[in-house]
Amino acid sequence: MVERITGGITAPAGFEAAGVACGIKATGLDLALIVSTPPARAAGIFTTNLAVAAPVVVTREHLRRSHGTTSSIVINSGCANACTGDQGLALARAMATDTARTIGCSAEQVLVSSTGVIGVQLDGEKLRHGITHAAAALSRDGHEAAAEAIMTTDPWAKEAAVRATTSAGVFHIGGMAKGAGMIEPNMATMLGFLTTDADVGPDLLQRALAEAADDTFNAITVDGETSTNDMVLLLAGGRSGVRIDETGYPAFVDALHTVCRELALAVVTGGEGATKLITVTVTGARTTAEAKQTARAIANSPLVKTAVHGGDPNWGRLVAVAGRAGVAFDLTHARVRIGEVELFGDGQVFADREPAAAEHLKGAKVAIGVDVGVGGTGTATVWTCDLSAEYVHINADYRT
Amino acid sequence: MVERITGGITAPAGFEAAGVACGIKATGLDLALIVSTPPARAAGIFTTNLAVAAPVVVTREHLRRSHGTTSSIVINSGCANACTGDQGLALARAMATDTARTIGCSAEQVLVSSTGVIGVQLDGEKLRHGITHAAAALSRDGHEAAAEAIMTTDPWAKEAAVRATTSAGVFHIGGMAKGAGMIEPNMATMLGFLTTDADVGPDLLQRALAEAADDTFNAITVDGETSTNDMVLLLAGGRSGVRIDETGYPAFVDALHTVCRELALAVVTGGEGATKLITVTVTGARTTAEAKQTARAIANSPLVKTAVHGGDPNWGRLVAVAGRAGVAFDLTHARVRIGEVELFGDGQVFADREPAAAEHLKGAKVAIGVDVGVGGTGTATVWTCDLSAEYVHINADYRT
Repeated sequence: MVERITGGITAPAGFEAAGVACGIKATGLDLALIVSTPPARAAGIFTTNLAVAAPVVVTREHLRRSHGTTSSIVINSGCANACTGDQGLALARAMATDTARTIGCSAEQVLVSSTGVIGVQLDGEKLRHGITHAAAALSRDGHEAAAEAIMTTDPWAKEAAVRATTSAGVFHIGGMAKGAGMIEPNMATMLGFLTTDADVGPDLLQRALAEAADDTFNAITVDGETSTNDMVLLLAGGRSGVRIDETGYPAFVDALHTVCRELALAVVTGGEGATKLITVTVTGARTTAEAKQTARAIANSPLVKTAVHGGDPNWGRLVAVAGRAGVAFDLTHARVRIGEVELFGDGQVFADREPAAAEHLKGAKVAIGVDVGVGGTGTATVWTCDLSAEYVHINADYRT
Repeated sequence: MVERITGGITAPAGFEAAGVACGIKATGLDLALIVSTPPARAAGIFTTNLAVAAPVVVTREHLRRSHGTTSSIVINSGCANACTGDQGLALARAMATDTARTIGCSAEQVLVSSTGVIGVQLDGEKLRHGITHAAAALSRDGHEAAAEAIMTTDPWAKEAAVRATTSAGVFHIGGMAKGAGMIEPNMATMLGFLTTDADVGPDLLQRALAEAADDTFNAITVDGETSTNDMVLLLAGGRSGVRIDETGYPAFVDALHTVCRELALAVVTGGEGATKLITVTVTGARTTAEAKQTARAIANSPLVKTAVHGGDPNWGRLVAVAGRAGVAFDLTHARVRIGEVELFGDGQVFADREPAAAEHLKGAKVAIGVDVGVGGTGTATVWTCDLSAEYVHINADYRT
């Protein structure tokens, strides 16, 4: 049984967190610290962007050197520490060293993460003060401040947590995530941080994270952009005493999936300028991969996203995108539905049903279904948001 | 020597055109007719979208059956005749038959083209009246009305023409095109119609069109959307008496390229909501194809397009897109310039140069250069426009 609980990233036993303002952003919290006692096993998935940011380089390195043993994650917002060369790399390392010294562990047991503007150097002095300040503020109640401290253009903080009652025992999983633009996951997306008090070995932990992310974090898109800083980290501290082996694995993944899904959908719902959550489901494709390719093409289409924003059941655009998605498509057997309303099927247009579809589009949650008509069993779901003039305003003025 | 002249689609000898209102659109001209006397040789390139519209099916069929001999092109705007099943196919055929009867040729010597809303049936009666009306209005002065009649959300009509003085003799090429959204060419893009009074054999004509389109129509993008109706047609009537053989071919392609480029750039400049023409040049890639892939990714990036719209020299977004474009990229040797201003190179950020780059972004023509840093010889240029709130407004309300 998986129950939703409060407590975010510190819901599992053994984790404390804090969020403080250290002056990297002009206003608001901008530094988050998560500490595991004892050190946790850690797994991570990372951006596929080749312009990889310094904190991603350092975190991968530390995971390798520590053999996946992590005491702390330190995260700043307001500055991505990307495209910052050797100086940026040194600053990312200093972020880990300063944290290690403050909380008392080795530098390689600290993972670092950054989000914000690309190409600007971090202020090491501000970070150092922030880390000291955050370490003093660590508590089980710090999850909210931590979730707030990793926000950039996010309209709200994104937290989730569950209590899982399984045959292996009761454990908890908590998490927080950061959106809200430059979101099209590939290997991993955006920033996501997950904790659990289950006791999970390194291989199972990595496998569980990859599996849970695949149809959650890796099935969302806001604008088709994969960031230089994307990472999702999962720490397993073991304090529940519940050991997860192959038998308990499915229940663990199930609970993890619940948290990942909630966070991933929150990222989309809070996408830049978003007013609607759009669920795109593609069926009838030759393979799952082809279904996902079509679903992604639809989810990233500016013409589809603007039509949904305008409440227009313009199914023709859905057909047009499916036709150009680069995979098998048969117009004579394709079907399109908006909500439960089929608007096109077997070459027939059902124009009289458009008012019902328009009614569905008025809601905050929109479902789009496209069958590509080639009679295959491939299906996929991708979540996205609508494209509003507000997205343009946010991104035209992001640095000013 | 290639000189720009006026006269658009009827600048070459032997062509007449007309544009009339037949009531498919609520207001304005919506039917264009082009007639060649004598029948011309014809070449065409077509959308790669698998949800291909009825007029594309019929035009391909007629080109095949007539062995590329064409007397007329008839085009309507306001209705794409796409996703319209057997009835739509019959209406596209009727459009050709009605035109053939009116001007006196065989149906297969008529090519048909449509643009506008998807999934709505054409009104055959209105079309028939429009064709009669247009045939009566045919003249050498009809090019402007014809160019106007193929517009949908285009802010202005797009025409171009040249006089080419070559060693083979003097000939003319004219053209008109339709934008303004759902523009990302692949095999062909949008609607483009070209005429020439040169005498060109069928193989050379098709080769010339493909070659000229490759780095003009096929190197532009407004929103990454490939339409169901895209086609570019080229008619060669031969009335100049200038025979183009292999020797004269380069000069012919050169002249054709001039017209295609002018029309293609006009499509981008007149893109939905566009305020700036952006030239994206990618260098240093392993191959031309990889350079083009990166250039397209940049040109379609909503974050790049909104930054340009906002006048923000946010070079970090350019690096981020180049890094996720799916081809070889080396951050340590990559370079980014906006206008003539290098903002990033060899891992160095030149933040003090941003004001100069911001100054460049104030203009109506913006140049972006990205060297992907892998030391190859692959280069490519793609043209696009910025992304404004107006694009969202146009496409949220397109059918209302």
